[in-house]
Amino acid sequence: MAKFLRHALVPMALLACAPAIVPYAHADEGMWTMDNLPVKQMQDRYHFTPSKEWIDRVTKASARLALGCSASFVSADGLVMTNHHCANECLQQLSDKTHNYFQDGYSAKNPAAEQRCPAMELNQLDSITDVTDRMQAALKGKEGEAYTKARQAEESAIEKECAGADAKTWRCDVISLYHGGRTALYRYRRYQDVRMVMAPDQNTAFFGGDPDNFNFPRYDLDMAFLRVYENGKPAKVAAYLPFDAEGPKDGELVFTSGNPGSTEREVPLADLEFSRNVTVPFVIDNYSALDGALWQYSRESVAHHQEAQERIFGIENSLKVYRGRVPVLADPKLLDAKAKSEASLRDWINADEGRKKTYGDPWAKNAQALAVKQQIFKPYIMLEGSFGLQGDLFSYAKLLVRGAYERQKPDAERLTAFHDGRLPALEAELGSIAPVYPDLEKTELAFSLTKLRQVLGADDESVKQVLGKAAPDDLAVSLVNGSKLADPKVRLALWKGGAKAIEASQDPMIVLARKIEPQARALRKRMDDEVAAPSRQATEAMAKARFARDGVSSYPDATFTQRLSFGQVKGWDENGKQVAPFTTFAGLYDRATGSDPFKLSKPWLDAKGRVNLNTPFDFVSTNDIIGGNSGSPVIDAQGHAVGLIFDGNIHSLGGDFYYDESTNRAVAVDSAAILESLKSVYKNQALADELVKGHL
Amino acid sequence: MAKFLRHALVPMALLACAPAIVPYAHADEGMWTMDNLPVKQMQDRYHFTPSKEWIDRVTKASARLALGCSASFVSADGLVMTNHHCANECLQQLSDKTHNYFQDGYSAKNPAAEQRCPAMELNQLDSITDVTDRMQAALKGKEGEAYTKARQAEESAIEKECAGADAKTWRCDVISLYHGGRTALYRYRRYQDVRMVMAPDQNTAFFGGDPDNFNFPRYDLDMAFLRVYENGKPAKVAAYLPFDAEGPKDGELVFTSGNPGSTEREVPLADLEFSRNVTVPFVIDNYSALDGALWQYSRESVAHHQEAQERIFGIENSLKVYRGRVPVLADPKLLDAKAKSEASLRDWINADEGRKKTYGDPWAKNAQALAVKQQIFKPYIMLEGSFGLQGDLFSYAKLLVRGAYERQKPDAERLTAFHDGRLPALEAELGSIAPVYPDLEKTELAFSLTKLRQVLGADDESVKQVLGKAAPDDLAVSLVNGSKLADPKVRLALWKGGAKAIEASQDPMIVLARKIEPQARALRKRMDDEVAAPSRQATEAMAKARFARDGVSSYPDATFTQRLSFGQVKGWDENGKQVAPFTTFAGLYDRATGSDPFKLSKPWLDAKGRVNLNTPFDFVSTNDIIGGNSGSPVIDAQGHAVGLIFDGNIHSLGGDFYYDESTNRAVAVDSAAILESLKSVYKNQALADELVKGHL
Repeated sequence: MAKFLRHALVPMALLACAPAIVPYAHADEGMWTMDNLPVKQMQDRYHFTPSKEWIDRVTKASARLALGCSASFVSADGLVMTNHHCANECLQQLSDKTHNYFQDGYSAKNPAAEQRCPAMELNQLDSITDVTDRMQAALKGKEGEAYTKARQAEESAIEKECAGADAKTWRCDVISLYHGGRTALYRYRRYQDVRMVMAPDQNTAFFGGDPDNFNFPRYDLDMAFLRVYENGKPAKVAAYLPFDAEGPKDGELVFTSGNPGSTEREVPLADLEFSRNVTVPFVIDNYSALDGALWQYSRESVAHHQEAQERIFGIENSLKVYRGRVPVLADPKLLDAKAKSEASLRDWINADEGRKKTYGDPWAKNAQALAVKQQIFKPYIMLEGSFGLQGDLFSYAKLLVRGAYERQKPDAERLTAFHDGRLPALEAELGSIAPVYPDLEKTELAFSLTKLRQVLGADDESVKQVLGKAAPDDLAVSLVNGSKLADPKVRLALWKGGAKAIEASQDPMIVLARKIEPQARALRKRMDDEVAAPSRQATEAMAKARFARDGVSSYPDATFTQRLSFGQVKGWDENGKQVAPFTTFAGLYDRATGSDPFKLSKPWLDAKGRVNLNTPFDFVSTNDIIGGNSGSPVIDAQGHAVGLIFDGNIHSLGGDFYYDESTNRAVAVDSAAILESLKSVYKNQALADELVKGHL
Repeated sequence: MAKFLRHALVPMALLACAPAIVPYAHADEGMWTMDNLPVKQMQDRYHFTPSKEWIDRVTKASARLALGCSASFVSADGLVMTNHHCANECLQQLSDKTHNYFQDGYSAKNPAAEQRCPAMELNQLDSITDVTDRMQAALKGKEGEAYTKARQAEESAIEKECAGADAKTWRCDVISLYHGGRTALYRYRRYQDVRMVMAPDQNTAFFGGDPDNFNFPRYDLDMAFLRVYENGKPAKVAAYLPFDAEGPKDGELVFTSGNPGSTEREVPLADLEFSRNVTVPFVIDNYSALDGALWQYSRESVAHHQEAQERIFGIENSLKVYRGRVPVLADPKLLDAKAKSEASLRDWINADEGRKKTYGDPWAKNAQALAVKQQIFKPYIMLEGSFGLQGDLFSYAKLLVRGAYERQKPDAERLTAFHDGRLPALEAELGSIAPVYPDLEKTELAFSLTKLRQVLGADDESVKQVLGKAAPDDLAVSLVNGSKLADPKVRLALWKGGAKAIEASQDPMIVLARKIEPQARALRKRMDDEVAAPSRQATEAMAKARFARDGVSSYPDATFTQRLSFGQVKGWDENGKQVAPFTTFAGLYDRATGSDPFKLSKPWLDAKGRVNLNTPFDFVSTNDIIGGNSGSPVIDAQGHAVGLIFDGNIHSLGGDFYYDESTNRAVAVDSAAILESLKSVYKNQALADELVKGHL
């Protein structure tokens, strides 16, 4: 397991408000949209130009897990390859008192034995349509609230037309690229019947644990295989990636196709300073405290350990990312370059009256937006971002309350997440049979209520409203004990009952969510109208000015939509020491200590005599990836799968802000390691055969 | 309880490397040394000039608790007034299964019943001697290691001469003021027999808990009374502060006499940037994680709650301080002013060949020191600062191991803490009968070993040496279970046995401390020779240049030595709302919710009918204080005690870097509240009488 899943913990709006345009792409840099690949660059550097057939196959064989990961089809019978850490929620949800699939691994004897993941949705990209003109026409001349509303309405209309009557089959997302310089409609085939095929044990998938996370050399078999079903049968898919039994060679040209979540390579300097001075310290502070609390919680019993493990992984993974941002955001090289580039653009605008009129002063506009953001940052993140009200039960309650109110409005006036086209996914979420752990719920809620009071202060009106005269611990216990929302039937009944059922509900978690909804909504409205809207307009103006001046287009900042990166298998120089690009199975046995997280599982201990120790295990390449790329296939020039992305090295943590080919490396499992481990360690010949043959 | 004790958790060397000179003191600003009071300023602003008798009495009636607090004598019979949060360690150590003095309060019926605090030392300032010339002669022309050694040797010699044969009675500290612009010898009378007289219950002392910490209005009775003994009898002291039964008035001139720990008001900009980019993020990250772990630990049982409470208080208090630094260190006003001031000084030096020769380029020298500091920061703080090896048992082991090796050297070559004059305090620490809690030890050690591996990486040689093939949890359990160091007799025997006993010891904690000692020492040496020495020389050169140019002297940055501040009782304007300077007992009853930390204790619930609700409770004043001032008396122009400092308001958190009279406020308990609560709530007429009469 590792960390290239998209962070789900902090509201994205706060952390990645403003993607932007990269004027020049260097070397192997770039997360390219499939309809605008850098063919000249690829040809110049690697003497390779992908055919239309190659692009089509790679596009259609790529997929996205709605929870925030990437994936690919690797057989005609709907077999999906992704990371263990992208499937861990499902593995945990399928586990019971006798089976701990998350810890011990999973292996279905045959398709009939493959169990359905309770809350997994897979999206396969079907088409991309340019809707830039339509969106710009709808937004013209609008500001603040009017802008937010017009944007919501137009997105709703476009998505509705796209999905048509069949929102269960199609998912349509309007995506803003290049800061609204372009708007695109992404249409996805939606698979909600996703079943577990195979996953190795956790020790092997996440060998080295948090200490080795983001490091290399590495020895992780961070893989999982799923299968999508249609009408109760393995789905026949139009495109898949043939599996390469050998893996790539040192220096070989390789691609990744995946869904990088977000980057901030072209956000204004003021936004980086805001991150450095406000967001990053706040997130590290609060995640570290939660990490500490859950660390102790998981030491209390085997059950607590099991319940908290996946959550801890997510938090520690995010923490490594945020810690990585601290030195980057303090690096004068980055900050000075950005200051210089912005100053020159500002001078260029101000040198001409026409340009001044066209672009205005986007820096002043952005600064004003950031001032509002600063003002509402803490209440927003605590109340609307729910950092002050954590746990599954409150999340359900909030979704139910907001969903009930939102669905009373016409589609065009709703928040994006509640458009008709998005409702099936929400309903699936509410119907999830994933277990809710009362002890963990109480701990998370008591923790977050304590934080709520600490961060906003005991005299804050919302804090008083939530806590009344109760202590956080007591309130958490009574809320969790009193709520029936752990039962999916109860949740679905409330969902179907709409606003009337919500208003009538005496469930204490619903009562709390109802009570806090007005403040949370008000904060959301300010963030949308007074921060996001003007900030987007400001960065859009900067981007347009840059286009007008330089006439150069490149790849847009990441948006959790499909992107292709190219690069080569290659080590790097670490303070004068060359890091080799491959590890082998032998290295895994060498690194094992016998104790967690460097403990070998039984299958590997047993296999030591028969496994080929020279099998390449993990490798690094220069591909430009970021969180969200977890589970991306590594593809060779023939369009075959030669590896499986699961992480980046420590230098890749700067990748949010810039790409440095000399040290930034993607980390992948070698396809040869996947095959050899299936055959010699996990004795799953059937799956190995399906991979090699490309069908069941 | 609150937070103006000096932070003990992070090695001071890392956090406050370079105190310096403030060229102009404004308004009520200043932490003045007793031999250089701003008499003109006081006269101009308040028409008051203290008499020699006033200064003498205040000086001698002030005291310092070795653990990091301030205190004062309030009766001729050795009665000492300080904060509850300065006595909480003692209260906890005196507690047993039937008495929880920390939680429920303490009250000795008469002096014979006063119990001795197991590990408390009180120092009373006896004299200050200028040793600047002697020190400068010893250091002349020295650099790096030679500088460090010469400094150690000269300090040792001065302190030895000062304490003479009677190091048990006298403590002598060489203190560098104004960056070595002046060096002073502080000689203290040492009291090691300190007994507990009275402390209120924790609910009242720390009413509002962490949420209200650093806030005002406030309702805390953060007081404790101790008594120093000589030869088994209450000590007769030469000076004490008569107790004022009324408390101060709004606008009244008041003083505080205490021991502010450290400020960084004149450290170079580069040091502030280092704090912002490295120290503050690291400390917040790691303290928050520990805070979270202990938060959960304390929820596990009543015993765990009791064991961890004092530790949690210290951590949360430090966290508030560090969180307060985040916006201050990002404030362009502060940073720009400092950049400008340094640029002008640099220009002044460079404008003249003679000055260039005299002062050199102290900024370059300092930058080089900071580069080394950056490089060794994490290993230093984890291994030498022991953040990676926490718990009382390891601390004892480290002290024993280092002490054994240091004591083999001649006094002049030892680290300051191991000079002959300091040994009695160390011996007292090792002989402390304070309980060691095995569960808490295991938790802290497992936590810190996990952090050690996380921060330095699994491949770090020291990490491998400490952990071997063990998991942090398993190692912590075996170390704590296997060690006998919880027993003071065992510790004292090892201390007396010296290096031979240490080398022969099989105690696993000693074995570990022995193993890590060479790396820890090497890091210490680099920090001393390559960071502290050149950094001190650099800031000294800057200070001297400033003196030469401006000819202005002011107060030195804080050094945990006695300082006087002056100011007045005064509220402040908080975003347009006036905050009144006083609270009353009635406000306490209003704010109570019935649940922790806003819960009234039984004595207060019972007293509601008879207590005078109009009694002033806490008040704020413009006095310039900082961590370490906890327990300082507030003194009026007559030299009487009118209050007891225990905290600052939220704006005081900027006080590390600057003093802003408009909002920075000290928070104190009113002397009237102390008397009224003793009489009407705690029914301790004897103590009230002693305060009023000034003797038993």
